Amino acid sequence: MNLWQDRVNKFSLELKKEGLDAAVLLNAANIRYFTDLRMNPAAESIAVITSAGEIIYFVAPLDFKRAKLNCWIPEIIPFPESVSNHLLPLTDFFKKRAIKRLGFESDSISHKYYCFLRDDLSAELVSCSEGLVVLRSIKTPEEIDSIRKAAAIVDTAMQECMMMLSEGITESKLTGYARYVFEREGAEGAAFDPFVASGENSWLPQRFPSNKRIMPGEMILFDMGAVYNGYCSDLTRTMAIGGLNPEQMDIFEVAYAAQQKAIRAVKPGVSVGYIDEVARDHIAQAGYGDCFPHITGHGVGLSIHEYPIVSGGNDHILCENMVITVEPGIYLENVGAARVEDMVLVTNDSCEVLTKTKRELV
Amino acid sequence: MNLWQDRVNKFSLELKKEGLDAAVLLNAANIRYFTDLRMNPAAESIAVITSAGEIIYFVAPLDFKRAKLNCWIPEIIPFPESVSNHLLPLTDFFKKRAIKRLGFESDSISHKYYCFLRDDLSAELVSCSEGLVVLRSIKTPEEIDSIRKAAAIVDTAMQECMMMLSEGITESKLTGYARYVFEREGAEGAAFDPFVASGENSWLPQRFPSNKRIMPGEMILFDMGAVYNGYCSDLTRTMAIGGLNPEQMDIFEVAYAAQQKAIRAVKPGVSVGYIDEVARDHIAQAGYGDCFPHITGHGVGLSIHEYPIVSGGNDHILCENMVITVEPGIYLENVGAARVEDMVLVTNDSCEVLTKTKRELV
Repeated sequence: MNLWQDRVNKFSLELKKEGLDAAVLLNAANIRYFTDLRMNPAAESIAVITSAGEIIYFVAPLDFKRAKLNCWIPEIIPFPESVSNHLLPLTDFFKKRAIKRLGFESDSISHKYYCFLRDDLSAELVSCSEGLVVLRSIKTPEEIDSIRKAAAIVDTAMQECMMMLSEGITESKLTGYARYVFEREGAEGAAFDPFVASGENSWLPQRFPSNKRIMPGEMILFDMGAVYNGYCSDLTRTMAIGGLNPEQMDIFEVAYAAQQKAIRAVKPGVSVGYIDEVARDHIAQAGYGDCFPHITGHGVGLSIHEYPIVSGGNDHILCENMVITVEPGIYLENVGAARVEDMVLVTNDSCEVLTKTKRELV
Repeated sequence: MNLWQDRVNKFSLELKKEGLDAAVLLNAANIRYFTDLRMNPAAESIAVITSAGEIIYFVAPLDFKRAKLNCWIPEIIPFPESVSNHLLPLTDFFKKRAIKRLGFESDSISHKYYCFLRDDLSAELVSCSEGLVVLRSIKTPEEIDSIRKAAAIVDTAMQECMMMLSEGITESKLTGYARYVFEREGAEGAAFDPFVASGENSWLPQRFPSNKRIMPGEMILFDMGAVYNGYCSDLTRTMAIGGLNPEQMDIFEVAYAAQQKAIRAVKPGVSVGYIDEVARDHIAQAGYGDCFPHITGHGVGLSIHEYPIVSGGNDHILCENMVITVEPGIYLENVGAARVEDMVLVTNDSCEVLTKTKRELV
């Protein structure tokens, strides 16, 4: 049995457990998880998975030929050309199968689409997002291979950018170069728009690159991620070209130590809230408790941000083969910002750090 | 009065007309339309506009300082740090103002968020997307300036890529170069992942670039768009490096003529469905009716695809200062594909083509 049919079967067991006859999926990452097809990002497609372990894939007419050629799924159906009766093939399918209770993605489907489904499909709609994000959070060996490759690509890009770093280079020249390395190394693209935030841009913080030139005495955040075979990586390093003062060195040391402490806490059975707490306590004890205004990390996979979210009070439990980021940060007005982010694979008794680029200030 | 307060006022009149006390906006393009702030794409923010013409902007703690510094809106409120009481400031605000009927974006808000709003805000939720997309579709002179600049940048990128086009160059080398030009010319980035689809990739069609090398005898689609000051451009050209056969030349001539005919039909008072019909009829009469499996065009602005969608049977009426694309295409198995796409500004009596790159086969 192929890897993707295996995923379909696992999800169909979830559906049965929830008393659902089928699920209708519109989220691109969820769809790719089952179809293994890199789709046209500009057009909608819909995957339907039944509790009997079938998958039916509905695609735009424009994408039909390519889907038939490249996707493992036997049953691929094009939407009709006309917009008005768009969902007709789904309606027909659900009627034929007498689908009564239908799972849908409450966390990503638009309310308008929800209403379409509710009104056109005459089935009871029940959220199935929760089961699916948990299923996706435990990575298979093949997924971990892709994530390792995405991590290796972002490491290469970060290291080459570090070598380019010099006085007067613009933030966007660095991010442009990172994108070039992604492409050269066989990535599908960037997991998000890479950004460099230097000087004032770091502590504001500004999450997009500008034409600002990098100068000595500035702290520089560089955050980027590549996509390989659909899977994302995510890496942040803090850099400088010299001239940092003791306060700047201090926030770097505190943020870096907080991250290392949090990583050492990562193992199966621990809650993500605890990982957040470890990082947050370290930063608070150093006197920067008010300067860490974001979560400690997030799951990574086919989506750049996915379950589990490593945030305060969140009692989701880490399990073997989850991949999360650990990225506490300190942002201090008129001083700078420091954040060290790595990707971490939960192993059977602790964790393995997947991103390798050196963490010390350049 | 500033340009953005003017937009707030116009939208608040819409709200009054619909009997709404306020609207809650989560869609990034809708928010930027009113805030004029380039936001952090990774964090949520919420704009609330009241029927009295006020705007209140709620942002993530991480983004608060930058929003205070760079955004014209006086009332900016950070979300609380903890995830559990995320919407508390909104709940407070709505209670204080006794908001009873609340507009929301049915076309983009997730069903889960809709449920949050419904359950937490104890207001009646009414879709306000329709009025807002129509408001956004009529561009102001300042918006048209930004769109002209985005169009000029994509023209520059396309023309430079055409000069680079040569036997053996890979698709992704061309798209990588286009991204470089975008950045060099001051764009915020790409409106979507640019793609080159050559040979088999063109007629499938595949909407992302690969490492496939470009060869004589192939038809090549190149589709890209830049973002300038938040506003998108969108341009497609069909190219070849020689060796096309008469059938390939024919589908190019037909697609190009269909596009020119459709552009000549663009003027205020005409329905977008009619523009689609003009293009589709021309292609059908040439015998390629089954080879045009997508819409003829779409509005462009802060979103790459926005109202009005130029599709069959759509009776939305073109108005002065709308900007749409016109991009009929022909995709023929084992032959190739042809699509010429331009951006068109609806003027008071006809239209102006904003993208200028030469349309003939290279």
